[in-house]
Amino acid sequence: MHIEVICTGDEVLTGKIVNTNFSYITQKLEDVGLAVQWETTVGDDRENLLRAFQLAGERADAVIVNGGLGPTVDDLSQEIAAKAAGVELELNEDWLKRMEDFFQRRSRVMPPNNRKQAMLPTTSEVIDNPIGTACGFAVDIGRARFYFTPGVPRELRRMLEEQIVPRLLAKAGLPGAIFLKRFHSYGLGESHVDSLLAGVEDLVPDGSVKLGFRAHYPQLETKLTVRGRDLDDARGKLAPAEKEVRKRLGNFILAEDEQTLEGVVLAELTKRGATLAIAETFTSGQIAARIGPLPGAETILRRGVLARDLRDVWSSVGLPGAPPAGELTKETAEAVAQAARRATGASHALAVLIEVDEGPDRIEFGGSVCLAIAGPDRVASRRSRIVGGREWVRLGAVELGLDCLRRYLQALPVDERTDFEKR
Amino acid sequence: MHIEVICTGDEVLTGKIVNTNFSYITQKLEDVGLAVQWETTVGDDRENLLRAFQLAGERADAVIVNGGLGPTVDDLSQEIAAKAAGVELELNEDWLKRMEDFFQRRSRVMPPNNRKQAMLPTTSEVIDNPIGTACGFAVDIGRARFYFTPGVPRELRRMLEEQIVPRLLAKAGLPGAIFLKRFHSYGLGESHVDSLLAGVEDLVPDGSVKLGFRAHYPQLETKLTVRGRDLDDARGKLAPAEKEVRKRLGNFILAEDEQTLEGVVLAELTKRGATLAIAETFTSGQIAARIGPLPGAETILRRGVLARDLRDVWSSVGLPGAPPAGELTKETAEAVAQAARRATGASHALAVLIEVDEGPDRIEFGGSVCLAIAGPDRVASRRSRIVGGREWVRLGAVELGLDCLRRYLQALPVDERTDFEKR
Repeated sequence: MHIEVICTGDEVLTGKIVNTNFSYITQKLEDVGLAVQWETTVGDDRENLLRAFQLAGERADAVIVNGGLGPTVDDLSQEIAAKAAGVELELNEDWLKRMEDFFQRRSRVMPPNNRKQAMLPTTSEVIDNPIGTACGFAVDIGRARFYFTPGVPRELRRMLEEQIVPRLLAKAGLPGAIFLKRFHSYGLGESHVDSLLAGVEDLVPDGSVKLGFRAHYPQLETKLTVRGRDLDDARGKLAPAEKEVRKRLGNFILAEDEQTLEGVVLAELTKRGATLAIAETFTSGQIAARIGPLPGAETILRRGVLARDLRDVWSSVGLPGAPPAGELTKETAEAVAQAARRATGASHALAVLIEVDEGPDRIEFGGSVCLAIAGPDRVASRRSRIVGGREWVRLGAVELGLDCLRRYLQALPVDERTDFEKR
Repeated sequence: MHIEVICTGDEVLTGKIVNTNFSYITQKLEDVGLAVQWETTVGDDRENLLRAFQLAGERADAVIVNGGLGPTVDDLSQEIAAKAAGVELELNEDWLKRMEDFFQRRSRVMPPNNRKQAMLPTTSEVIDNPIGTACGFAVDIGRARFYFTPGVPRELRRMLEEQIVPRLLAKAGLPGAIFLKRFHSYGLGESHVDSLLAGVEDLVPDGSVKLGFRAHYPQLETKLTVRGRDLDDARGKLAPAEKEVRKRLGNFILAEDEQTLEGVVLAELTKRGATLAIAETFTSGQIAARIGPLPGAETILRRGVLARDLRDVWSSVGLPGAPPAGELTKETAEAVAQAARRATGASHALAVLIEVDEGPDRIEFGGSVCLAIAGPDRVASRRSRIVGGREWVRLGAVELGLDCLRRYLQALPVDERTDFEKR
């Protein structure tokens, strides 16, 4: 099935906003096994919109149009859709009523120009938007079925997932239910994971499971997509493959699906009524900055300290004298973590200390990371060397610190070898 | 002049990467007074590429193609360009030599598949890429001039600015020189600045100056674009308007052109051989995280402390007892800043303390910010109330803290009223 996407709006065309709606749409379709062939962006311009609709209508089987459903004069999607389909616009009384209710529930009167949002091509099928006033609709133009969606990201997302993806799957003649399982890991490269998971797809004999990856350093996302008659069927088919991935990636799986590493860490701390102190060098406090903004973190994250050099960290956690001279060691990190616990009264402390190379930034630039986690009854630590330039070292150290804290809290070893370090 | 952009590559089409190259290109053209009419994204697919080139060649005067100039088999731009132009590919000996030198200077031997990058349509004009092996080129397809650019962002940027924009301006028959002046401000809303700057365009009587804005909370960018015979002419024309903007926005201008707020702060500190300590609540250390990663910051940013509540900040900077009970005050922030200086030995300290509202996040959610800056000979402080939801308060407080530090270092008042606060 040939699928196209048309993005509309001057703000996108002039680059005032980066087109993340498109990458969202195409990724979402990929996740269910559909591929976008062609994307077009045009502005709020009648002639270009009409031409774009006509061209896509000649090439495609299905077209998703994003934007232009708002109440203002530069929102032209319904008007041009009707023209391209060769039909009139007519008022959809049901949607008008929905909008009036929408405003009434918010104790407001609907402005007259919102009426425009209920004007749809006569041949349209309404596509529900449960959270906004922009009415989605589908209509045939040329040989393609066009699906019109709102530009507001959360409205687009809901409409695409709940309404449009099922229609596209039905149109493509694919079984109705797709289930997507995602695993997030840190420390294993994409090709390493690919070879570790060799044969996993074959565990589901009908070939309906597909394995895929999305790398965003330092994390890797491993995706399993499965097709079934319905959701229970899809989940059931996936079970052996899912179990095998969990077994083979083991301790490296730091989160699943919508979870994040920092969210998992915070949940583990919350579960045991713990509090946290963090001491960082070189990372500019980016470990604390990952945890701090999460809902609920204000009662957990007790204190963070960042400093440019070790002596400052040493004194800031109340340690007497100076840190040991010579190469940075795990023992020094342990001392800092334990002192940070004492100084702040937190139940747990994470110390991530980094000694970076001398000289200008370059691809061979590296740093030695010594980190330690102190809790009520034990201390764990590790040493690691990361290379790849200053920013790479910084990103890697932040992830390593958070992941080791996750491992500590889940009673897993904190010193498993990763693909990103030199020893 | 009708301009189009064609973005190529499976990674962009499948959403694996968000298409920031497109927003960069279109913004850059906007800045010099040119408008993109139409954008197309296609994958690494011969048929779709050819069709996209042909369609754009029918509609446009100029087309910028991004991507597909690499050495691998899925890089198809030269091949399809030749086909669409109805000419052959031929080896460009000059570029081959350039590439061989490029590898030799890096003590490497050029892999054989890089040779492909020097194969250009016979009718091409070479467009220089001084920092990479992908050769840019221009060729006519249909009625349009096509400009082929590399997908690597820094190579694209350099080629677009130095090579392609001047060619487009010449093609459009516009005076050769465009000068863009940008002012970054914090604390004034877009409509407020728009009214403050009424009449500024008229200071240049020939109408060649254009005023524009780009808002990205909490900062606002004010842009003046001017056209002239050459750069000196353009700059000369701009002078009275530029002077007037600087006068009217006054202390609110925090940086100009490529400068950033954190960069200006760091430069001011560096200039006087100063060092800095930062104490933050609620911001998760985001003030330190803005300054810390900048080149040179490691010798300036001596220590950062973040804490969930005031008592932790109080004790972490070595203050005895507990902070004053009751409402957060400027005096408390002053005490923390002064103590942070003493405790860390830094010449300057910034304390940003925030008391946020109770209850769930909502648009009326607000926070009271008390901040203070202590230096060798004086202390400055201010109190401010920001509303707009938790994240809005956080972003606003970070910007306010950094901007007050900038004002302090530039001997400007730190307590000028902003549009973003309630009093």
